[in-house]
Amino acid sequence: MNIITIVGTGNMARGIAARALAAGRKVELLNRDAGKAAAVAAELGSNVTSGTVGQAPTGDIVVLAVPFDAAKEIVSAYGDALAGKTIVDITNPVNFETFDSLVVAPGTSAAEEIAALTPGNVVKAFNTTFAGALIAGETEGQILDGFIAGDNAEATAAVASLVSDGGMRPLVVGALKRSRELEGFQFLVMTLQANPTFETFNWNTGLKIVG
Amino acid sequence: MNIITIVGTGNMARGIAARALAAGRKVELLNRDAGKAAAVAAELGSNVTSGTVGQAPTGDIVVLAVPFDAAKEIVSAYGDALAGKTIVDITNPVNFETFDSLVVAPGTSAAEEIAALTPGNVVKAFNTTFAGALIAGETEGQILDGFIAGDNAEATAAVASLVSDGGMRPLVVGALKRSRELEGFQFLVMTLQANPTFETFNWNTGLKIVG
Repeated sequence: MNIITIVGTGNMARGIAARALAAGRKVELLNRDAGKAAAVAAELGSNVTSGTVGQAPTGDIVVLAVPFDAAKEIVSAYGDALAGKTIVDITNPVNFETFDSLVVAPGTSAAEEIAALTPGNVVKAFNTTFAGALIAGETEGQILDGFIAGDNAEATAAVASLVSDGGMRPLVVGALKRSRELEGFQFLVMTLQANPTFETFNWNTGLKIVG
Repeated sequence: MNIITIVGTGNMARGIAARALAAGRKVELLNRDAGKAAAVAAELGSNVTSGTVGQAPTGDIVVLAVPFDAAKEIVSAYGDALAGKTIVDITNPVNFETFDSLVVAPGTSAAEEIAALTPGNVVKAFNTTFAGALIAGETEGQILDGFIAGDNAEATAAVASLVSDGGMRPLVVGALKRSRELEGFQFLVMTLQANPTFETFNWNTGLKIVG
């Protein structure tokens, strides 16, 4: 099956949908508000369908394009309905009150916490790419790096294929626990976007390994 | 004073010396083996002097271009002689036996552990730049990003000035505790260099925020 289910209709959902469509996949958008999902789906074109969160996802890959707390709630509510699915966690569990740490404890990660709540195969991806760059498909003319971590080889390979077909460079960095480093560094990158010292950083940069 | 003291004579010491010389600074190389320091200094040119670890550093900036354990030993041995100095910690405290974690506990960093041992102002820098890129002064034709973290504004500014004058882009990311994220992510980058899947990654890449 060549369908990617994306839960959420925000900027990250749109960005990942753009890469999935560029990869030749069909997209199913699910939102709590079915009307919102239908409207965004219509905007994104004929290869996008819509539905309501809670209905069985059509895609083998289910991208949780929602904040960390919502992602935990959604996988918990789905329960065994996600067994056998590849669940893509894109979250950055930043403490936005202090903007000085993550809300997950040192030595763990949002991805690992989500994985503990679902029988699906959780893969970390898209957490270091901002929405604008995903929609554009590049950063300053350079290919986007897509960092991917996961414990299930088939699931990580499926996400790497999506990333690659979508015009990005997939970098499968290792086991799901490597999400600790991916989330930690993207938190740091996010603090720079919010820091007026960096005039050119406006939630539009791309994290890359050049070489 | 326009002198940078570098402790160590390995590849990273040579790389940082290259950037310091490009920045118009003079370099003092200290090594346990004074003959080794003299030989490398002679190789690097007339703006480089040499000496033995333990002698009072001439530079206001002292770069510890040695592994983590050695860095801790050196600052401990110097004691109060480093008071008022800017101490640059470049270490990546990777557990090289497992290559699966750091040797520092989650929620801390090598930089913070070193800072606890010295009255000097510890600044994290150069831990995400490999020696070859520092010597070349670029990565695939792109400017090198120099991530910098520190608690003392004057000390971080002095290191940022060195980095900038050396032809790199300084990115002062925040307090010294942000070294946790810098060390964590560079550990991940190092695992990729050692991973045969990534054929083009051979301890020669550059970590960049593009934008």
